[in-house]
Amino acid sequence: MSEKQQTWVDGAAGSAYDVDNLPYGVFSEGEDPARVGARIGDYVVDLAAVAAGAGFWTEGGLAALFGTDSLDPFLAAGRPVWDEARSWLVSLLTNESDRGLVEPFLHPLDSVTMQLPFTVADYVDFYCSLQHATNVGRIFRPDGEALLPNWRHLPVGYHGRAGTVVVSGTDVRRPTGQGRPSADGGPPAFGPSRRLDIEAELGFVVGTPTALGTSVPTSAFADHVFGVTPLNDWSARDIQAWEYVPLGPFLGKSFATSVSAWVTPLAALAAARVDLPGQDPAPLEYLEVDGPAGFDIAFEVLLNGEVVSRPPYASMYWSPAQMLAHLTVNGASLRTGDLFASGTISGDEVAERGSFLELSWGGQEPFATASGPRTFLEDGDEVTLRATAPGTLGNRIALGEVTGRITAG
Amino acid sequence: MSEKQQTWVDGAAGSAYDVDNLPYGVFSEGEDPARVGARIGDYVVDLAAVAAGAGFWTEGGLAALFGTDSLDPFLAAGRPVWDEARSWLVSLLTNESDRGLVEPFLHPLDSVTMQLPFTVADYVDFYCSLQHATNVGRIFRPDGEALLPNWRHLPVGYHGRAGTVVVSGTDVRRPTGQGRPSADGGPPAFGPSRRLDIEAELGFVVGTPTALGTSVPTSAFADHVFGVTPLNDWSARDIQAWEYVPLGPFLGKSFATSVSAWVTPLAALAAARVDLPGQDPAPLEYLEVDGPAGFDIAFEVLLNGEVVSRPPYASMYWSPAQMLAHLTVNGASLRTGDLFASGTISGDEVAERGSFLELSWGGQEPFATASGPRTFLEDGDEVTLRATAPGTLGNRIALGEVTGRITAG
Repeated sequence: MSEKQQTWVDGAAGSAYDVDNLPYGVFSEGEDPARVGARIGDYVVDLAAVAAGAGFWTEGGLAALFGTDSLDPFLAAGRPVWDEARSWLVSLLTNESDRGLVEPFLHPLDSVTMQLPFTVADYVDFYCSLQHATNVGRIFRPDGEALLPNWRHLPVGYHGRAGTVVVSGTDVRRPTGQGRPSADGGPPAFGPSRRLDIEAELGFVVGTPTALGTSVPTSAFADHVFGVTPLNDWSARDIQAWEYVPLGPFLGKSFATSVSAWVTPLAALAAARVDLPGQDPAPLEYLEVDGPAGFDIAFEVLLNGEVVSRPPYASMYWSPAQMLAHLTVNGASLRTGDLFASGTISGDEVAERGSFLELSWGGQEPFATASGPRTFLEDGDEVTLRATAPGTLGNRIALGEVTGRITAG
Repeated sequence: MSEKQQTWVDGAAGSAYDVDNLPYGVFSEGEDPARVGARIGDYVVDLAAVAAGAGFWTEGGLAALFGTDSLDPFLAAGRPVWDEARSWLVSLLTNESDRGLVEPFLHPLDSVTMQLPFTVADYVDFYCSLQHATNVGRIFRPDGEALLPNWRHLPVGYHGRAGTVVVSGTDVRRPTGQGRPSADGGPPAFGPSRRLDIEAELGFVVGTPTALGTSVPTSAFADHVFGVTPLNDWSARDIQAWEYVPLGPFLGKSFATSVSAWVTPLAALAAARVDLPGQDPAPLEYLEVDGPAGFDIAFEVLLNGEVVSRPPYASMYWSPAQMLAHLTVNGASLRTGDLFASGTISGDEVAERGSFLELSWGGQEPFATASGPRTFLEDGDEVTLRATAPGTLGNRIALGEVTGRITAG
């Protein structure tokens, strides 16, 4: 993208939502049916309306893909269509001559309501941060090895609940459930979780499906993954700690997972590609990657408006191309709308940890905030994840934020 | 249902598919679009055609619910509609005066193709057999306690991959993946699984959805669950054993899960209700059940046509009403098409174990078959699960069988 391509949209040039970003979402305004839009500056472009007005691909084309209440058809259309749509959109938003065509279909963000942008098919959560896995191992299994023997050989992952993935802004009700008995042989604890937590993660959205019995090599990552969304994998640590052996987390996670209303296309992250920090031992052949497989995305965790952590995505041990290759090496098929997430992002520093479990070391070492020392989430707390990455125009682009407020259980 | 209600369908009266059974599925014949049918004897009734012909609920009613290629709309319609449809169908199939209306829409089973009967929303697999959990604990963790401390307090479960649930008759490709290193510190094993296994289970199909933040009490089980299907949770034990700590099974299970083409309504299992074998300690209040919460369903596992095990569902420790109450106690919502399964059914006897892992005690004690001693699945093996239960007409009814053949990985 050349620097000459400056957008004519008011306030967008040089912003975090310039034409090198252009995330997609689903919006509604007033009583009109929901439809697909792209964000430019502080506006949403009504894509179906513009495509129809431009006579661009109207017949079974872009107008049809965008004139629906979910990104599903666009996601399913595949990489060539994603690329074509992006070029078309950049051209419209930078050519002054197209202004008259597009401007009537720009809606100020504060006039629209955003909804969950796609139908989540299967949701898989990985565990790709060496620092997070080490921290959690030390906290949950103080008497054992922090890192289990498989961890450096494969991206550990498990399936989560697709039906409880919610869009940013949705309140999260404190879950009720069982915890460890307070005395050996006694009944389990029961009630609203007292160790409710966040996990700051990056989610990857699959567009192009695959057939059962086939696998996706790491080199085909961008043919199948459309884009990314910050993701908060809310976690009830007391429920999780009691239930998770031997079959893994279940109710400690399944009450809610929040994603952004905006899916940022991989194409917007071209300047954010970085090498992985290094893998030792070298992974098996199906997990080998060529070139920079990581992403330099800077996260911020805000608790009631205050930044309490800055997890660096560039520190992640396993790359998303490896997660996808691993997820499918057994022949598992992909569907449009499959969502897989990185696992909690935690860097080397205390102030880079992506969960309150780690920030407070299992609740034993409260961390300082403007409103006093904190451990886990309290009713009324609002958590927001923000993320930015280098753009291709010299600025930083923003990923759509993810926010959620805790209500009483 | 009175004994006078004898069906006029050839060969159906007194069979395992009499009018006290009437499972639902989705069939197609020739080039016609797929649609919903019910099984009676060795025939499929084309329900939309009959409903339209009968003028019964045609306007947005039963004909519309059945004239689609999935059970989803019927499942979503809820208990009153399920009950009304069943009464209507029994009446049609037992009144000689309705014969002329229905007979043109009876298709011989061998003239139709069955497909996956509903869209699987989320798939959860439980672990509800005390005998199975004890056996697996002994095999996988010979140095630890067989049963973990949480097991008698909650039905342990985890999410599986909904997108790889396949209909009976679908071939299963042997999955490739990582296994434990052969030497400490060495690279993991890699290749087609050498310990490919089955798990004989019963699956429960959710019809009526719930809102996020609400729970389903055990007493509301039948308001939400439409019916059941035998289920084979294919498992690669070598992949599972290496990957499953600390987040549970993933690729060892996600390559395929087979269900029957037929969903048997709960109403058909009225005579199969039995008390649970007994729970000690008594479960927490939200897991208490009134009356007979178990099901007397007799399974058979066939390997290449030979019965190798007879798992008794009546031996299960946790009931499906308890599974559902537990699944939602944290406020997780249900969607139409959610599928949850019991976990492997294993009785007290060796010949009642529902997995080859247990039948061969981890591969160490091959079990006898007509074709010689066996441990895990070989390429070309065909496994079929059959299940029967007491009907309400004095006969035994059959649940739809589940079959699958292993192809080379």
